[in-house]
Amino acid sequence: MIIIAQPDATEEQIEKIVAKVEEFGLEAQITRGESRVIVGVSGPEKLLHENPLASLAGVEAVLPAAAPYNLAAFARRGAASTVDICGVSIGGNAAVALICGPCSVESREQMLSTARLVKDCGARILRGGAFKPRTSPYSFQGLREDGLRFLAEARNETGLPVITEIMDARDLPVLERYADCLQIGARNMHNFSLLKEVGRSHLPVLLKRGFSATINELILSAEYILSGGNMNVLLCERGIRTFETSTRFTLDLSAVPILKAKTHLPVIVDPAHGVGVREFVPQMSLAAVAAGADAVMLELHEFPSLAMCDGEQALSAATLAKLVPRLRAVANAIGRDL
Amino acid sequence: MIIIAQPDATEEQIEKIVAKVEEFGLEAQITRGESRVIVGVSGPEKLLHENPLASLAGVEAVLPAAAPYNLAAFARRGAASTVDICGVSIGGNAAVALICGPCSVESREQMLSTARLVKDCGARILRGGAFKPRTSPYSFQGLREDGLRFLAEARNETGLPVITEIMDARDLPVLERYADCLQIGARNMHNFSLLKEVGRSHLPVLLKRGFSATINELILSAEYILSGGNMNVLLCERGIRTFETSTRFTLDLSAVPILKAKTHLPVIVDPAHGVGVREFVPQMSLAAVAAGADAVMLELHEFPSLAMCDGEQALSAATLAKLVPRLRAVANAIGRDL
Amino acid sequence: MIIIAQPDATEEQIEKIVAKVEEFGLEAQITRGESRVIVGVSGPEKLLHENPLASLAGVEAVLPAAAPYNLAAFARRGAASTVDICGVSIGGNAAVALICGPCSVESREQMLSTARLVKDCGARILRGGAFKPRTSPYSFQGLREDGLRFLAEARNETGLPVITEIMDARDLPVLERYADCLQIGARNMHNFSLLKEVGRSHLPVLLKRGFSATINELILSAEYILSGGNMNVLLCERGIRTFETSTRFTLDLSAVPILKAKTHLPVIVDPAHGVGVREFVPQMSLAAVAAGADAVMLELHEFPSLAMCDGEQALSAATLAKLVPRLRAVANAIGRDL
Amino acid sequence: MIIIAQPDATEEQIEKIVAKVEEFGLEAQITRGESRVIVGVSGPEKLLHENPLASLAGVEAVLPAAAPYNLAAFARRGAASTVDICGVSIGGNAAVALICGPCSVESREQMLSTARLVKDCGARILRGGAFKPRTSPYSFQGLREDGLRFLAEARNETGLPVITEIMDARDLPVLERYADCLQIGARNMHNFSLLKEVGRSHLPVLLKRGFSATINELILSAEYILSGGNMNVLLCERGIRTFETSTRFTLDLSAVPILKAKTHLPVIVDPAHGVGVREFVPQMSLAAVAAGADAVMLELHEFPSLAMCDGEQALSAATLAKLVPRLRAVANAIGRDL
Repeated sequence: MIIIAQPDATEEQIEKIVAKVEEFGLEAQITRGESRVIVGVSGPEKLLHENPLASLAGVEAVLPAAAPYNLAAFARRGAASTVDICGVSIGGNAAVALICGPCSVESREQMLSTARLVKDCGARILRGGAFKPRTSPYSFQGLREDGLRFLAEARNETGLPVITEIMDARDLPVLERYADCLQIGARNMHNFSLLKEVGRSHLPVLLKRGFSATINELILSAEYILSGGNMNVLLCERGIRTFETSTRFTLDLSAVPILKAKTHLPVIVDPAHGVGVREFVPQMSLAAVAAGADAVMLELHEFPSLAMCDGEQALSAATLAKLVPRLRAVANAIGRDL
Repeated sequence: MIIIAQPDATEEQIEKIVAKVEEFGLEAQITRGESRVIVGVSGPEKLLHENPLASLAGVEAVLPAAAPYNLAAFARRGAASTVDICGVSIGGNAAVALICGPCSVESREQMLSTARLVKDCGARILRGGAFKPRTSPYSFQGLREDGLRFLAEARNETGLPVITEIMDARDLPVLERYADCLQIGARNMHNFSLLKEVGRSHLPVLLKRGFSATINELILSAEYILSGGNMNVLLCERGIRTFETSTRFTLDLSAVPILKAKTHLPVIVDPAHGVGVREFVPQMSLAAVAAGADAVMLELHEFPSLAMCDGEQALSAATLAKLVPRLRAVANAIGRDL
Repeated sequence: MIIIAQPDATEEQIEKIVAKVEEFGLEAQITRGESRVIVGVSGPEKLLHENPLASLAGVEAVLPAAAPYNLAAFARRGAASTVDICGVSIGGNAAVALICGPCSVESREQMLSTARLVKDCGARILRGGAFKPRTSPYSFQGLREDGLRFLAEARNETGLPVITEIMDARDLPVLERYADCLQIGARNMHNFSLLKEVGRSHLPVLLKRGFSATINELILSAEYILSGGNMNVLLCERGIRTFETSTRFTLDLSAVPILKAKTHLPVIVDPAHGVGVREFVPQMSLAAVAAGADAVMLELHEFPSLAMCDGEQALSAATLAKLVPRLRAVANAIGRDL
Repeated sequence: MIIIAQPDATEEQIEKIVAKVEEFGLEAQITRGESRVIVGVSGPEKLLHENPLASLAGVEAVLPAAAPYNLAAFARRGAASTVDICGVSIGGNAAVALICGPCSVESREQMLSTARLVKDCGARILRGGAFKPRTSPYSFQGLREDGLRFLAEARNETGLPVITEIMDARDLPVLERYADCLQIGARNMHNFSLLKEVGRSHLPVLLKRGFSATINELILSAEYILSGGNMNVLLCERGIRTFETSTRFTLDLSAVPILKAKTHLPVIVDPAHGVGVREFVPQMSLAAVAAGADAVMLELHEFPSLAMCDGEQALSAATLAKLVPRLRAVANAIGRDL
């Protein structure tokens, strides 16, 4: 660890910093520059809590020796890792995957007919929400276990693995019976109890970025899951909250190359929640693939204007059918399949 | 409900909007303005999902008949409500309350000696975290039930009611044994499972604003708790995430008068998390009282630079002793006690 | 114009609203819905200032009859327009253009050798700053007229038209002598005096989005230029300020399809300022083309680590040479040339 | 200057960093820590451009020896400075000043009658805009020189010094004839040409924080004015752009104590633009005084609902008359006059 003193730190302040370091049984090494003093710290750093030192008078910055995450770090593996969801590989050199389905499971009929459309358009994973996080307690909250059953039936018919959201640690057993991949929604990215719980699951976890989470916080939330023993984590950019009001959120596509440089985990983009308007979802899907996304997650609804949730951002089957070949062309243009 | 067509909506689009309304068994009433058409909708609005209409071609906006929250609305009561925490009243015309204690319970000794300082400085409620939400899985996560026991012991000795954070719905029974008021942290404001669970508790709930939640979303999260039957909810502003980097978050004090105009619930300010630097906490506490806060929540640590969590924003007992009379003077200046 | 009353507006408030409308010599038309009153306003709307009505008691919203911009609106032309910069067409069905050059003109030699590299890599427009907006008064402020001379010399040698920034209305005459296209930087997007001045120029204007400007504000700033009579305006997305700190700004690529839907003006993306790190510029350039950008603006420096300004985001000639064919492949994948 | 290498920087990268430093004729001093290398740089730092080094492979951070501003720094004087506007002192130990007037000068009669109200309520400086920065080219742009004449007449009658906005460097001579203090609006905080121009004026300058400018950027813009020789600069917080939509901007009151700690310049708060709704302006004014503001700037309009600009945030004379004694009480509570 390195402690950097403020340019105007007094000699007495430096002494107190050194005393504090030594109080922890560590060794301090002072370097005097033209205009600053730097204190290098040797010894087992775990003994040092970063904050107390940062708050000492005269300290400008405390730089840890290493990144705050370890298991997620690219350097840990030195190569991108691939996550397998019932035979569909995502990440690394695998083909770009399309994950598709309705925002929420609304009925058995809707789920089955939508699943057929999803299969027909070339998507390889089926999505659908049975437990829905809704801002208002008075909005539709999902079909719960019934929804899971319809999802599983759709999987059996189409052969597509299913991904669905978990909102409560207590629901893990029932979700593990039906789902092939768990999704942690943006609003639960900082729900540390839930992260620890899915860290003990045998299912892969698609972790969405909180809409006001930094890229580092997303990686640290992934680290919670990885440190529980579950190494199959996929990261998902879905838009961050900014001042712009033309879009529901601002899709931060620069997160794609940055996450791929900082971690070895696959990176997925969900363009519809960020943009919030169906009309602009195709362009942002194409951009996501061009930016290097390992998978794109889209909402499909037979009758978008009748959807019980987020209908304004769902694509129709006709739009999707036209979009898929263009996604494939862009994937090919950057040297990937889809 | 009122549907406002775009200025350039075609006659055919208007017809489709009306058809959709009637499809739901509702009555549509068309008004043609100079440059726009408006469709008024009569009948039980619950039948209508807002989104599908907003996404129809030619629709500019859909205005619901009423605010999306009901139980929290100021109009529901017509007066500010008061929440009682073991005899300490917060809100309405009650004196401004000081809530004080360490960020986290670190040991029995620390908790007891800090509680005595809290009592001495005139604070009326004791805070302390036993379950800590930490961004990194490798940071100190709290003493858990041991911490609760030390908190309860501090309450017994000082007579101050205690407030502590709940992070997992499964911890509610143990928390109800020890705590006098539950806190939902900023990172869990959108944890709807947890909100529903504390909605069934007999304990008051201090609900912190998510650091990227709008004021309306905070009220809707309160509505989750209220609609579960628990009417003792306190709202807490603690800083929102912005581009500014001089402070950890940006304390949004305008939320105080706005929340008090929109809801009847008491409003608390936690200035330290927003500002993130001990040096500026006193000024922001004074500003919070001037803006109309019903309580101020502060972090106190015997030895701030040794705190295991957020030490850089904790006040020392000496600073607090000087601050309290000034807080009281500002409260008096706007016609309140403290 | 339509005035929407609050659900709980009193009869007296409605009367005052109507009285106010009639005071302006306009006609008010009342519609009573299930839960609200709407007042339609007929007559020349210019007489009405929007704000006074919005602030009357009982008013929830005032919807203008039309978008606040007119000349920039897509509906005004019904098709994308093309801007010609000395024979290079940008926008509409024209090939995607590459605009390239150093952030700032540093010397005659640097400018000439860089211009040759720009030409060789297939870019069609040369950029370079002679007047530099710098956050600190102590940073390099540009070579001013000398810089313009070197730019012009580079144009003469390579045949590439040049684009350069204007920061002060008083510099317009000298810029018009040397430049082929004027650039308004992000920090001047709201410098209305400057916008009016370039609205009188015969040169095309590349208008960058302010880093905290909404999409609507960008269009309104373009409207300032258009309403001065200069119809050759190009809009440029370059990143907005958000809470994320991994990148210098957050490149908002969703602005591309939205601007192309709302306006007929060509849309350019400058990915380097948004990302701020050279390593991720190629991916974001590819994404910009996939999202539909009409041109991409890149920084090229012979020796990026020696650049006097923004060197950390400049590409080397070698990187650019590898990037251009990939940009072309993505352009082709969505049916465009480059 | 200190260059901090990444934990995994190679020996070859360190050598290149050192070579680069020496290339500039500076001396490099290497310190090897447990897990990192640090390079201290001695010699005249002006020779080094920060960016090139920050972009070298293996560099994690470059820390300059001192803050990027000098004349504005608190340390430069060691005490708060006071700015005199025609006999009214602002800053230091001076009484908190009230600056009041209409958003824009609308007519001679309006200006004179408003000025009398301003004087009666105890404000000590008169404000009014003659040149108005408006987002839309079709909005009211101000009375220009006529407005200045009416302002000057109001000053002559009431004896209150006047403050008014400058938008264009070319208007400085005419503004110097009529105004006692120049205002740079939020949208021009980064208009460096204008900053340099007012740096040569003999009038004090009230510099508003850009709505997406960091605190450091505000200080750097002040440094532009100070470095031109004009030492009478007042800083003004007026709200920053965030995701919250209940308010027009988010008033960042924590900027008050931070600016007073970082600089010696007086700090003013304009609460109305931030909040955007008249109803909440009083509470935020009280909070501004409690946070330590040296002056509060308010909008007053005889008939707020008829104002030609920003009427929804102007106070009536009756509201102001009730507010002033409360502002004074809060000022007294923290040991100041008003």
